[in-house]
Amino acid sequence: MPAPLRLGLAGLGTVGIGVVKILQRHADLIAARTGRPIVITAVSARDRSKNRDAELSSYTWETDPIALAKRNDVDVFVEVMGGAEGAAKLATEAAIASGKDVVTANKALLAHHGQALAEAAEAAGCVIRFEAAVAGGIPVIKVLTEALAANQIQRVMGVMNGTCNYILTRMQNAGLPYETVLKEAQQLGYLEADPNLDVGGIDAGHKLSLLASIAFGTRVSFDAVELEGIGKVSIDDIRMANDMGYHIKLLGVVQMTGRGLEQRMTPCLVPADSPLGQLQGGTNMIVLEGDSVGQIVMRGPGAGEGPTSSAVMSDVMDIARGLRLPTFGLPATSLVPAIPAKSATPAPYYMRMKLLDKPGALAKVAACLGEAGISINQMRQLNQPGEDNNAIVLIVTHKAAPADVSHALAAFPGTGVLKGAAVAIRIEEV
Amino acid sequence: MPAPLRLGLAGLGTVGIGVVKILQRHADLIAARTGRPIVITAVSARDRSKNRDAELSSYTWETDPIALAKRNDVDVFVEVMGGAEGAAKLATEAAIASGKDVVTANKALLAHHGQALAEAAEAAGCVIRFEAAVAGGIPVIKVLTEALAANQIQRVMGVMNGTCNYILTRMQNAGLPYETVLKEAQQLGYLEADPNLDVGGIDAGHKLSLLASIAFGTRVSFDAVELEGIGKVSIDDIRMANDMGYHIKLLGVVQMTGRGLEQRMTPCLVPADSPLGQLQGGTNMIVLEGDSVGQIVMRGPGAGEGPTSSAVMSDVMDIARGLRLPTFGLPATSLVPAIPAKSATPAPYYMRMKLLDKPGALAKVAACLGEAGISINQMRQLNQPGEDNNAIVLIVTHKAAPADVSHALAAFPGTGVLKGAAVAIRIEEV
Repeated sequence: MPAPLRLGLAGLGTVGIGVVKILQRHADLIAARTGRPIVITAVSARDRSKNRDAELSSYTWETDPIALAKRNDVDVFVEVMGGAEGAAKLATEAAIASGKDVVTANKALLAHHGQALAEAAEAAGCVIRFEAAVAGGIPVIKVLTEALAANQIQRVMGVMNGTCNYILTRMQNAGLPYETVLKEAQQLGYLEADPNLDVGGIDAGHKLSLLASIAFGTRVSFDAVELEGIGKVSIDDIRMANDMGYHIKLLGVVQMTGRGLEQRMTPCLVPADSPLGQLQGGTNMIVLEGDSVGQIVMRGPGAGEGPTSSAVMSDVMDIARGLRLPTFGLPATSLVPAIPAKSATPAPYYMRMKLLDKPGALAKVAACLGEAGISINQMRQLNQPGEDNNAIVLIVTHKAAPADVSHALAAFPGTGVLKGAAVAIRIEEV
Repeated sequence: MPAPLRLGLAGLGTVGIGVVKILQRHADLIAARTGRPIVITAVSARDRSKNRDAELSSYTWETDPIALAKRNDVDVFVEVMGGAEGAAKLATEAAIASGKDVVTANKALLAHHGQALAEAAEAAGCVIRFEAAVAGGIPVIKVLTEALAANQIQRVMGVMNGTCNYILTRMQNAGLPYETVLKEAQQLGYLEADPNLDVGGIDAGHKLSLLASIAFGTRVSFDAVELEGIGKVSIDDIRMANDMGYHIKLLGVVQMTGRGLEQRMTPCLVPADSPLGQLQGGTNMIVLEGDSVGQIVMRGPGAGEGPTSSAVMSDVMDIARGLRLPTFGLPATSLVPAIPAKSATPAPYYMRMKLLDKPGALAKVAACLGEAGISINQMRQLNQPGEDNNAIVLIVTHKAAPADVSHALAAFPGTGVLKGAAVAIRIEEV
């Protein structure tokens, strides 16, 4: 059997400890499957004295992850520290400069510096792999890069942040407002130290930008992702969308259109009976559409020690098995700059508004929509007893261009029949 | 750019023509993604004069697939002829003997001769890849062999025959009996020439036996698969299972238990609101469970030109990219003979029976179950107006060993209170 593949493991949080445990538990299985033992030679983490749920005494301790990345007895640098800048970036650069392959779970690092790192790695003959960075245990990078390699990809969609999906489904199932559920999630430890990374859609947007690069052969362009978090999703809309047969998800969508590359991570309505609509709790789901394969849906745990370290280890084992692919599926120097689509593909929209009890109110709203070129597919007027005399009006439009929707929203106040602002949320056709 | 990878394509049916079309449509994309052009040099099929929906004039025609497999200008033999014996087997053997890699969509061939072919290939330094053989466009072979390689696999389940799932969901949605829907499916061309391959569960059983080998490191043992087709699934059971919150699926399950390897391809009840329960029509679904990753669910098209040829091409592109894995994930000589579990893991059962209108009838049935060590979770008695005076009784048991269920079924007639035989169907906990 060939010499062991030697890992330097930077980061001993949830994911790092998961990797240690898998390697200790399944050393023989892994060696049999890859044809080569895989061992950890050295580890690093910020705090050596911290009590960790794993036996680490047989590994060399490095205080400095950059020193770890450069060690002669390390073949693969496993970066599970996190953070787009600082030590994770410097250590990854040092690993590549020293000719090491890199396996990382760091979506932020790659979303911001993926192009430069990929170019450096490929120039040095190294590979960077990052299955764990997107959708945890769901092997979306492998499936997109390898299994669907013969397809022109048409669209990639997904629920990629389990915390947001937990919050939205909990709001729906318990009928609780956003703020209450956010606090619950915080108490349960589901949120990042900076909650905006989750609920602002940034974490999911990072992931989406990586998938876009692989799907369309473009340079990672996180800055071009249309980002909107879930903070403005109201329990009213969740409830009323449900009544109309839809669920609200923080949905990522990338597609290449005649107008350019569309990257969106925004709250959307999806049919309640679709796989995406049925997704509950912290689970993730990715939908891949290719010109030959049609639609592939994958569902699984998007985070956690086991799923994420399983993904890290699949990358490590691919390297041990001799698989060497460009970081984003095509050579980094051949990735083209993404031309962002200025506006999203037309789609049906859900609208909710409160109308004053005035004659002709509904006609005025309908006229606004008509003038904006938007036609109505469904409309419901709800009169809620015990409330004020205003009527709630729900509208599902036919496909409309986002600019036309904005135009209509801007015209509504001029009618004088709305109480407050109208809400409009895109309905993604899945 | 390196020299092209040259394919010899044996079989110009749906899949073969799909491969031709992908290679013609996406030659540049494929070359960019693999770093190497992929070309067809020669093709073969039974009937040269047949009108095919593709331009084939630039390929050398071989009448004999064995001669095709041996050609010096062929690097990879692509076998999409089908059939466990005969030309497909001989040509594959010839390809391996000539040192060619093989990509095949032929589940029957591998289910029956996979071990011998894998040993021959690995001895010759060749690879055999077969993504298209299982679940069409769903990349289950890749995900199981590669993405989940660091996991001890606990269970693999799936709906792997789209025709059976079409028939079962059509029966349910239209309320039609099996025979009627079978005829419909035949007229729609959904069935193999020998329908028993589909509805008898054989085709799906072939696929399951291949997944079992990868999942558990055992030699393919199709003969040990517990096979039961859908021919005995009645519209009554579909309807009544639905009323109890279940759908009936032809479900494949493999798991390694203390009693040995369990391989089943049988009609099962699954919760109606589970991903498997919600699967409609000809779509396939695979559920993979590993000790670290938890549960991964994949859904997609199980057949058809595009999806199947997409899977064939992913194997070809992996070879072009230099990935060389043992056929079943472990070296063929290290696969161990499967020790078949003599009986399946205990599970809840659904039972349906007709009771004569006699005092104490239900008590006698309950006593039979009690004597067999089976406890009852739910029971419903339906009195259907306008019918005879018999009562339909539906029972959902707690977990019971299959032998105990057989024991109870054998004891029922002795009670003298049943009209006809009782039906018992396993409920798989998904």
